[in-house]
Amino acid sequence: MTADDALVLGLDVGGTASRAVVVTLDGRLAGHGRAGGGNPASRPPEVAAASVATAIRIALSTADPGAVRAGVLGVAGFTRMAEPRVADSFEHAWRGAGLRCPMSVVADLSVVYVAATPAPSGTVLVAGTGAVAGRVDDRMLTRIAGGLGWLLGDEGSGFWLGRAAAREVARALSAGQSLGLLGRLVTRRLLGDEPPTEPARALVAEVYRRRPAELAALAPLVSEAAAAGDPTARAIVRDAVRWLTGTLAEVRDDAARTPIVLGGSVLTSTGPIQNAVRRTLARRWNAPVLVTTTAAVGAAWLAARTVTDLDEQEAAALHDRLRVATAAIE
Amino acid sequence: MTADDALVLGLDVGGTASRAVVVTLDGRLAGHGRAGGGNPASRPPEVAAASVATAIRIALSTADPGAVRAGVLGVAGFTRMAEPRVADSFEHAWRGAGLRCPMSVVADLSVVYVAATPAPSGTVLVAGTGAVAGRVDDRMLTRIAGGLGWLLGDEGSGFWLGRAAAREVARALSAGQSLGLLGRLVTRRLLGDEPPTEPARALVAEVYRRRPAELAALAPLVSEAAAAGDPTARAIVRDAVRWLTGTLAEVRDDAARTPIVLGGSVLTSTGPIQNAVRRTLARRWNAPVLVTTTAAVGAAWLAARTVTDLDEQEAAALHDRLRVATAAIE
Repeated sequence: MTADDALVLGLDVGGTASRAVVVTLDGRLAGHGRAGGGNPASRPPEVAAASVATAIRIALSTADPGAVRAGVLGVAGFTRMAEPRVADSFEHAWRGAGLRCPMSVVADLSVVYVAATPAPSGTVLVAGTGAVAGRVDDRMLTRIAGGLGWLLGDEGSGFWLGRAAAREVARALSAGQSLGLLGRLVTRRLLGDEPPTEPARALVAEVYRRRPAELAALAPLVSEAAAAGDPTARAIVRDAVRWLTGTLAEVRDDAARTPIVLGGSVLTSTGPIQNAVRRTLARRWNAPVLVTTTAAVGAAWLAARTVTDLDEQEAAALHDRLRVATAAIE
Repeated sequence: MTADDALVLGLDVGGTASRAVVVTLDGRLAGHGRAGGGNPASRPPEVAAASVATAIRIALSTADPGAVRAGVLGVAGFTRMAEPRVADSFEHAWRGAGLRCPMSVVADLSVVYVAATPAPSGTVLVAGTGAVAGRVDDRMLTRIAGGLGWLLGDEGSGFWLGRAAAREVARALSAGQSLGLLGRLVTRRLLGDEPPTEPARALVAEVYRRRPAELAALAPLVSEAAAAGDPTARAIVRDAVRWLTGTLAEVRDDAARTPIVLGGSVLTSTGPIQNAVRRTLARRWNAPVLVTTTAAVGAAWLAARTVTDLDEQEAAALHDRLRVATAAIE
């Protein structure tokens, strides 16, 4: 096998989606796939691993599994991967997809960071279903803040935004107040077009019927309503931005000028939250703020570096090529 | 059967405990029982009803079920009682305990209120596993605030206090900070006397292994640590008091001079939370603040009124006798 035939696999596994990219060592895209959430901290390991396996299979449908020489998986529930039942499920997933190469597991924060920049040190803030910030020194994650999950933390995350929306709407309905745009969007999403006779009770019951993390599905409604000027949604967004930038500040030195990388659906979606977070960070730190859209590319780049011997300049060039080659991936 | 033989049953059913009292129509205690939580909103209806049945059976072990002429049940998950599966489970519970009398279901707020005072109108604040405030006009609950459950509300409740404690301790452990008294109490409760090598991870995992409502078991540790001066616990208590008194203020007129009744384990336990809530309420309203310790007595009094024809003065006298007769119940 020549280096031209060799492939590497990058995986970005979150609470809502699992994404896989397969690339050549010279930076061409060979395949990509997407499946449901694969965070082993928020669902049974077999279910999480099955989502990851599906994403891998789709990505490899246009490539040869036997040519994959290394894989890196970035995952939100990183620390759970050491548990035997979780490790076994994932091992089973990639063997079942035909992979025979070494697979490394790293924190989602690491792959989000390296997907945006080849710079060895900086700060990363991810807000998807959960929210967590990390400090990267020489590509090692040296500090983390947030990320305690929906019950204990994740302030400013998609879950947190969705819960705040559901709470405000439940309160307004309970108090018999008329609903603003956010209230109308949330009730329509949870109760359909024809609201029942007791909407407050029905809405609360509907929220408790679901898994808590599913509240993250309401987060885009908060952004939509805030962008349209809804005062309740704007207040939620203000709080979220304060929490998110505060979480980042816990891990970043005041004097740092290294890159700040934003990732996760809450921060990669254009709109009032991304705008306000960028503005707040720019005011506080005079540093580049980069947004990662395809974190799996960072994982693929890390995988490529484990099987090649690139110097920093060559690695940065590969990074550029990979970002161009994968820019069109949703 | 003469009125002297006749009995009534009062039940107070919360998220953590179900309590039953059986009393005579002239105000003597004939039996009482206690069992696990019976809130149908926080556990399967069959499990909830089984707890209630156990409390009833214990209370009736010293009395004749056939002599019970009426029962009133006050329950936190009141609105769920109308669901067929819940109604069937509870029907089965009291028939199984030998009851053949009519049983009325009312909100826990109502029985907490009437347990403290025979005054027809006032305000009630209950903080047990959950937290809710109600306005009582002529013994009818006319407004409610809070009570949206652990995921959407219940600020200042036992769950809320316990979660705040777990969150602060998880954060301190994650950041490698040394623990204060609250941190030591919480880690000992959740992880035992010999903390594992990675206490932050172990504590977070332990929290997610339990049902969320079980976090309420940590609430007394917050009070204990706050009373001993722990700054983290004191900050949590300050927040809780602000939320609880704010929830009450949502349903009470500024000019009201009617009684304020406090109930639920968070507010009936002596300590910094009860003290601060009393002080805050006294500063804002010049009104009596009463604490209900045995809410089931309020339910029994309501039951007695359905089978007797007492005027207000006689009813108030029965209320006095019942409170004296049941004062020793834990």
